[in-house]
Amino acid sequence: MIVYSDKCEKIFKNEISGIDKKLNELFAGKEPLSLYEPCSYFLKGGGKRLRPILVIASAQTVNGNLKHVFNAAVAVELLHNFTLVHDDIMDNSSKRRGRATLHTKYDLSTAILTGDSLIAQAYQNLLKDSKINVNKIVLTFTNTIIEICEGQSLDKEFETRNNVSIDEYKKMIYKKTAALLEMCCSIGAQLSGASQKYIKAVSNYGNYLGMGFQIQDDLLDIIGEENEFGKKIGNDLIEGKKTYLFLRALEKAKRKDKLELLKVIKNNGIKPNEVDKYKNLYIKLGVIQDAEHEIMKYTKLALKNLSILPNRDGKDLMIWLAKILINRKK
Amino acid sequence: MIVYSDKCEKIFKNEISGIDKKLNELFAGKEPLSLYEPCSYFLKGGGKRLRPILVIASAQTVNGNLKHVFNAAVAVELLHNFTLVHDDIMDNSSKRRGRATLHTKYDLSTAILTGDSLIAQAYQNLLKDSKINVNKIVLTFTNTIIEICEGQSLDKEFETRNNVSIDEYKKMIYKKTAALLEMCCSIGAQLSGASQKYIKAVSNYGNYLGMGFQIQDDLLDIIGEENEFGKKIGNDLIEGKKTYLFLRALEKAKRKDKLELLKVIKNNGIKPNEVDKYKNLYIKLGVIQDAEHEIMKYTKLALKNLSILPNRDGKDLMIWLAKILINRKK
Repeated sequence: MIVYSDKCEKIFKNEISGIDKKLNELFAGKEPLSLYEPCSYFLKGGGKRLRPILVIASAQTVNGNLKHVFNAAVAVELLHNFTLVHDDIMDNSSKRRGRATLHTKYDLSTAILTGDSLIAQAYQNLLKDSKINVNKIVLTFTNTIIEICEGQSLDKEFETRNNVSIDEYKKMIYKKTAALLEMCCSIGAQLSGASQKYIKAVSNYGNYLGMGFQIQDDLLDIIGEENEFGKKIGNDLIEGKKTYLFLRALEKAKRKDKLELLKVIKNNGIKPNEVDKYKNLYIKLGVIQDAEHEIMKYTKLALKNLSILPNRDGKDLMIWLAKILINRKK
Repeated sequence: MIVYSDKCEKIFKNEISGIDKKLNELFAGKEPLSLYEPCSYFLKGGGKRLRPILVIASAQTVNGNLKHVFNAAVAVELLHNFTLVHDDIMDNSSKRRGRATLHTKYDLSTAILTGDSLIAQAYQNLLKDSKINVNKIVLTFTNTIIEICEGQSLDKEFETRNNVSIDEYKKMIYKKTAALLEMCCSIGAQLSGASQKYIKAVSNYGNYLGMGFQIQDDLLDIIGEENEFGKKIGNDLIEGKKTYLFLRALEKAKRKDKLELLKVIKNNGIKPNEVDKYKNLYIKLGVIQDAEHEIMKYTKLALKNLSILPNRDGKDLMIWLAKILINRKK
């Protein structure tokens, strides 16, 4: 098991370092500096690089040539960073990964423009790899951007709605998070000339991985380890976000407990010193186990879809990745 | 001459009404409403529809089938509207075409997201027409978005710089305005399967038309007719914008006149009751004629590039369009 993990980790570290190197070079010497310096600053903030890894792992799984998906892997990371830059404005966040967000470090106009240009730069990189089937790949990429915008729009809409169902929540996180992971796997396979069957299998893996990943995110807000650069525990509750745990608690709670939860909606969040009280309510209602169960369900669905795929090494990478994600602490 | 204009006007009115119809239908019934209602609202604001017309005229000029460029024409209008939505935020404009801008009518998040999704919807429409040569067309489209972001970035940069040269100004308006008109002509011809020579000719036409169009915009700020829905006369001066006229005046002015112009920079603009004073200074320095000369120069260059093109009817349309643009009053 350790050998297996070591092998996967080594492959991924190597691929990530290639992606990071490319992302560092991408804006060097480009003008105007007022546009490319903020691009460079933001991309240097790091991150898991999960999305480019999915492109690469997906290509490997269908026996693709990793060199042929390298620019597409860069493209999905640029696209992901566009969403972060604009989300930071919309969420009024001053920090990301322990550093000032773009609209805080520069100004609103710079942040909007940087995000806009990252979309176009993502397409530019995607087109470098697209020798075959380009129309379909660009369309997959484009449709995903639309899903992401719709997802973010629903997320904002939910902030002011009192009657969000878990089904609606799942539709929102599919659009906002899972659709991009699904697309990463899809274009990795498409660019490798994989069959429709294999493209579908890795796409499903990405979709389910994304669903589990987002619910895990919601869960870590409550049970995660707080650290200097990560988020504060209970932040979603403080901000009154309608997470999986919150909506599930609302569904299960009765009488006094329900009133406590409705107060969170009414007051658009709670005070930091109330986090423990609500955490205990979540424990009492069993929604932490419910979330763990959901994450496990989606992870199993993700892994199940890998069974038909040909390449054992590539598959190991994807299995390893799914396990890394459900075991992460932040 | 009247017959010639009538014919062109009839063709264009017909094409525009098709585009408008499509733009009206594009968002109907789509969800979430929190995203598509603002898209629909903004697109209904109207506008000259100059960019889709250029796609169509360009296709006609190279004997292309107009049906094959219809979706691309819709795409460039969506792209143009994305730039307007985000520019309105950056310029802090509360009105456009006599109606509330998106961030004013809704909120900042909605305006950012609407703009983002318009980019993706533009690509979606572009891809509908792209049966041939798709990689090149999507790349042309993508490179232009990057030019536009760079142009807008330079425009914002110039607001706080004191030493903008006319060459820098021209580079900025090329990126911010002319590059899109150039691209419209380019993809109209590319989608029609035109030769490189013809693609280059119509692209040059679009580029020069765009340069003339923007300087005309600067000129109309001073000599245009004020109306209920148009801009206020002298608005660029009030906002301290570094237009062609302002930079040319700064280049020509000496002593006391120069000091008056430097005051505009220092104070980030002038008071509304000072517009006439500065208009008279522009007249005295001859920069209104200089601007007219520049507009004429670019228009002639635009028309000159049409000479090698095959289709007389299509060419008539492009000549008519150039003349309409330099004779416009708002």
